Amino acid sequence: MLEKVILVVCDGLGDRPIKDLGWLTPLEAANTPNLDSLAAESECGMMHSLGRGFVPGSDVSHLNILGYDYEKYYSGRGTIEAAGVGLQLSDGDVALRGNFGTVNDQLIITDRRAGRINKVKALTEALDGLEIDGVTFIVKPGTAHRAAVLMRNGPSNVMRGIGLSNAIIDADPHKGDVPIRDVTPIDNTAEASFTAKVLNKFLKKSYEILKAHPLNVERQRNGEMPANYLLVRGAGKYGKVPGFKERFGFSGCCIAGGGLYKGVASFLGMAVLDVPGATALPDTDIEAKFRTAIKSLATYDFVFVHVKAADSLAEDGNFKGKRDFIEKIDKAASLFKELSKDVLLIITADHSTPCEQKSHSGDPVPILFRGHGVRVDKVTAFNERACTEGGLGFITGKDVIPQVLNLFGTLHLTGA
Amino acid sequence: MLEKVILVVCDGLGDRPIKDLGWLTPLEAANTPNLDSLAAESECGMMHSLGRGFVPGSDVSHLNILGYDYEKYYSGRGTIEAAGVGLQLSDGDVALRGNFGTVNDQLIITDRRAGRINKVKALTEALDGLEIDGVTFIVKPGTAHRAAVLMRNGPSNVMRGIGLSNAIIDADPHKGDVPIRDVTPIDNTAEASFTAKVLNKFLKKSYEILKAHPLNVERQRNGEMPANYLLVRGAGKYGKVPGFKERFGFSGCCIAGGGLYKGVASFLGMAVLDVPGATALPDTDIEAKFRTAIKSLATYDFVFVHVKAADSLAEDGNFKGKRDFIEKIDKAASLFKELSKDVLLIITADHSTPCEQKSHSGDPVPILFRGHGVRVDKVTAFNERACTEGGLGFITGKDVIPQVLNLFGTLHLTGA
Repeated sequence: MLEKVILVVCDGLGDRPIKDLGWLTPLEAANTPNLDSLAAESECGMMHSLGRGFVPGSDVSHLNILGYDYEKYYSGRGTIEAAGVGLQLSDGDVALRGNFGTVNDQLIITDRRAGRINKVKALTEALDGLEIDGVTFIVKPGTAHRAAVLMRNGPSNVMRGIGLSNAIIDADPHKGDVPIRDVTPIDNTAEASFTAKVLNKFLKKSYEILKAHPLNVERQRNGEMPANYLLVRGAGKYGKVPGFKERFGFSGCCIAGGGLYKGVASFLGMAVLDVPGATALPDTDIEAKFRTAIKSLATYDFVFVHVKAADSLAEDGNFKGKRDFIEKIDKAASLFKELSKDVLLIITADHSTPCEQKSHSGDPVPILFRGHGVRVDKVTAFNERACTEGGLGFITGKDVIPQVLNLFGTLHLTGA
Repeated sequence: MLEKVILVVCDGLGDRPIKDLGWLTPLEAANTPNLDSLAAESECGMMHSLGRGFVPGSDVSHLNILGYDYEKYYSGRGTIEAAGVGLQLSDGDVALRGNFGTVNDQLIITDRRAGRINKVKALTEALDGLEIDGVTFIVKPGTAHRAAVLMRNGPSNVMRGIGLSNAIIDADPHKGDVPIRDVTPIDNTAEASFTAKVLNKFLKKSYEILKAHPLNVERQRNGEMPANYLLVRGAGKYGKVPGFKERFGFSGCCIAGGGLYKGVASFLGMAVLDVPGATALPDTDIEAKFRTAIKSLATYDFVFVHVKAADSLAEDGNFKGKRDFIEKIDKAASLFKELSKDVLLIITADHSTPCEQKSHSGDPVPILFRGHGVRVDKVTAFNERACTEGGLGFITGKDVIPQVLNLFGTLHLTGA
């Protein structure tokens, strides 16, 4: 009987045939005896995480794969980033992600990452808790130059019917050597124009605070770029999201190096485990992650493991690096070969990232389900072409959790 | 890197197994070494142009395959026919297709095509520009006995809030030896009843004009049937359709013998090329069409080629003729074997037309994508059964253009 689930998502795993790999994809070119032998014990298929004809961003593809239809639960990356840095979101909050950047006196952006400043906690503390027109700004550091900004509406506004909106244009122009942008509303609602107005006031006030901040004074003295402007983007409005356990009955945890994936897990109420050596970089300790995943089955029902670097290597066009990193995944995957069939093991990707294109694409990715009850098919290799012959056929990200529940026998009956 | 696209649609190519062909389909029975070798270099699959459970008309299947969801962009064949004869449609126009037919004095239809009259330009000129109750009728000849009729609302009506509607029953009863029909509204809107009323007045007036027209007087003197009644059908209401280039970034052109396909292309703002020898009949010069397609890549980004006769032969139940015509397509397709992989070649059909049924069916059709970046699969024959094993799986017409954009890397990112 199935008792537990491990879901491994290898970011950007899918690819296209590459001439220098003999017209194989990196996954096909990699030597993957362990993944292949897992595939041989599995029911395989192909997955479009958002459906055909979509190029998935990492946030929405993970939401879909984890059973949360992004069209219903996603309103912008900001909410996920805010959850990822540990903020507790409330209904009606608007959250943004941000970079600390450098602007000159004419407010031209000279560096979007303030020379890749590494520690911004002192800066976020200087901004955290500011209140403007009844809206409180909660500001927390992310990794490196990043921060999360939460706008929480105060009771006086709520009483007067003034709400917040995510229908605003980013302040971040997404490139350097241009002036910072005023935040402007996208639609004609009072909420959007109020939110834009308050956020602009906050950003102006923040600039004054950051400009004068001792850390920046010192950075300039040392010839470093001051982190004097908070470039915000990706506004999302939080509406109550029912937790993963509440919806599906599984206590869940997440093992990931990358902040976004921890954010998605937090957003869904999963525990986020800390695994030493999980860096989200090619040097990451995949074996430690997989070993922790297996151990965590003692505590959690559903373990979501994210492995990042295949995607980053593909975005750099480094197809050999991607192939080699896949071999590293494969080596670690030998740990799963002895896994009891009472554990449903799912291995897949969130999307393809073709090395030639250096960005996400809409090509489907392989997926395998291994465990008690699956209809093991004839596929004996885990890759983009072998799995097209799998018993699952073509599925979408939204099909994954229903198939898990189906195998567990907990999917509800329609009709009678 | 992909630079250009050729899309070849072989009308009605799909079929069902036929006893006299050894239980093969005409496509399977045909000797098609060139299509098969193209398939071997391709990613293949099966397509339902409108999705499973639909028998596609040629107009809507082409709209879907060309990226225009027919449920959004199609409101009746009339608009496409009108575009096909070169009319510039405006928002709010209602367009109809028509035949010149023959009625007797009791208004019984004695021939729906007026003895297949061949030249109707003098007749359409006699009707073109009539104005009734503030609505102008623009009438242009189509091929043979056909015409297109455009109803354009005048400013006085618009100011008074009186619009036109396509919710009307055809005047054409679609068979002979019955009385002509009054146009009647389908729904209870003021627009529909106004449109029906004005159109009936127009048809009555047209009858008077046509009856007395010198061409008809002469025809009767020669013992020919007078083309004395305009039988209209297929009302469509035009709403602004964004052009193919505007939507997808490709300058497009169309190479077709059949008027409908040129109409679809015009409707989408594609250029319609004239290829001598392209007749839409079995005698058509397919090689000239394919050669022109390849040459046109110098001028256009996306070349849509339509080949008609497999469908017409199947509608006649002529399975050997269909098989032989497919061999003619195959011979011409040898021209594509040397095509650079920088050109994405797509070969498919709009629907199946089983020779035994003699009409369109909902059976899926094979499709191949050949060019840089595709995941070439193991399919080595281009037909209805071999392509079920293709790497694309089962797609719909609506998936075609997104897959093109995906391979070009221009499909937009969802999420972040």
